[in-house]
Amino acid sequence: MRLIENWFSERYSDNLQLSFRVKDQLLSVKTDYQRIDLFDTYDFGKLLSIDGTVQLTEKDEYVYHEMITMVPHYFNSRPSNVLIIGGGDGGAARRLLDLGTDKITNVEIDGNVVEIAKKYFPDISSSFKDSRVKLIVGDGIKYIKETENKFDRIIIDSTDPVGPAEGLFSRDFYEDIKAHLTDDGIVVTQSGSPYYQPAALAMAHKGMSEVFKSVKTYCAFIPTYPSGLWSFTMASSGEMKLRDEKAKSGKYFNSDILTGSFYLPEFVKNILK
Amino acid sequence: MRLIENWFSERYSDNLQLSFRVKDQLLSVKTDYQRIDLFDTYDFGKLLSIDGTVQLTEKDEYVYHEMITMVPHYFNSRPSNVLIIGGGDGGAARRLLDLGTDKITNVEIDGNVVEIAKKYFPDISSSFKDSRVKLIVGDGIKYIKETENKFDRIIIDSTDPVGPAEGLFSRDFYEDIKAHLTDDGIVVTQSGSPYYQPAALAMAHKGMSEVFKSVKTYCAFIPTYPSGLWSFTMASSGEMKLRDEKAKSGKYFNSDILTGSFYLPEFVKNILK
Repeated sequence: MRLIENWFSERYSDNLQLSFRVKDQLLSVKTDYQRIDLFDTYDFGKLLSIDGTVQLTEKDEYVYHEMITMVPHYFNSRPSNVLIIGGGDGGAARRLLDLGTDKITNVEIDGNVVEIAKKYFPDISSSFKDSRVKLIVGDGIKYIKETENKFDRIIIDSTDPVGPAEGLFSRDFYEDIKAHLTDDGIVVTQSGSPYYQPAALAMAHKGMSEVFKSVKTYCAFIPTYPSGLWSFTMASSGEMKLRDEKAKSGKYFNSDILTGSFYLPEFVKNILK
Repeated sequence: MRLIENWFSERYSDNLQLSFRVKDQLLSVKTDYQRIDLFDTYDFGKLLSIDGTVQLTEKDEYVYHEMITMVPHYFNSRPSNVLIIGGGDGGAARRLLDLGTDKITNVEIDGNVVEIAKKYFPDISSSFKDSRVKLIVGDGIKYIKETENKFDRIIIDSTDPVGPAEGLFSRDFYEDIKAHLTDDGIVVTQSGSPYYQPAALAMAHKGMSEVFKSVKTYCAFIPTYPSGLWSFTMASSGEMKLRDEKAKSGKYFNSDILTGSFYLPEFVKNILK
């Protein structure tokens, strides 16, 4: 007889929470940067939480990882050399490999995230075994200041703009990014839930607009992220135009989404003003 | 000292729930058709729940009501005579009035919903005081069989396809609808959460495809509905084409959304195959 049910709840505010029934808690660790919890849930498979917020689940990680990699992929020249800042689970690198990217540098600040992904999310983190992927455990802000490399795409796959990721939403950081993009290169960042975190989106969009010539925000629906609606913002020193190349389909992304995700609801447009 | 917190939870499955902290429960009533609960929540204002599922909240009702009325409004001839089946809160009728609709017939099966809306949601239900709106408390399925009227738009603003609303997703019902649409008239129905209720969307889309010449599904983001992503499906005996008329903006809807909401994620397209 089972008397006790275990639930993991993410609080979206003091007054609202989404709760997942869990079979088991697999891990809880406080690292130098953050608290990491891992649950085996009934509906979404394994779920990785950082500082109490869902980062990825086995069932719906595809939306976030497809959207942060595949959308910018089809703009401007075909990218071959890509930098990921964050993304220690390997999910963004995995999609870039699927797209045929030649060279990926992945700079993750917290080595624990990488180790946990390798052990508990072997499919998602399989990218780290590929010789095209160079994994660096270190501070992305410091890396971008010091590297002499330039990249065709820089993907900021970070946590929310509180704690270790705060600097990843700053104008100074975007200036450093700009200096390390190729001529028609593109930077993209996750920019939070427009509904619950309009300040994160406004910060990313404003910061990028001060530094880059063109900035575009797009949205996607992610069931396990707050409110279900998520935003991404990409920017370039020149124009951003779709290449004449047929887009691959993922489980979420397709050629319609490549266009449609840029059509924003009125309340999202108002955040960008 | 406050020791007890009160929460209303909607279970999306046995293993997943969204919970709203409530100041007070204002009402709980079992009618001939369904159980209705009303809560005063901290984050979303007053929240109306039917059979345990959120129907509307003060804070985000605009998304659903704009999207079920404004999208079909801008296709084909300008509608002047509109039928709403369901919609006892008055929210759909209110948006139709904003669009300048001449004549609205609103058939709601459960008079309790109307009375609750009048008392607790005076803004949303203000439409019922307008002389252009004729409210009928009765069975929409029976009404559509018996009426001799034809309508430019028929809006099926129902609960989910279990219980009293089940018949509103059937082929027979769509046949009756078709017989009461004007030549280039359009029917639209809410068709559930593509993520958690793919069967509801498949049922609506398949049923309409068997009866109508053209069928289109579109999506919107609604934070208090399961998964955050919601679908609507519209159909007509002829083609459906946008009129040459500048679309008004709502708080969610705008001319971009009028186009972009039809660009569907790959997993949603797969449900429609």
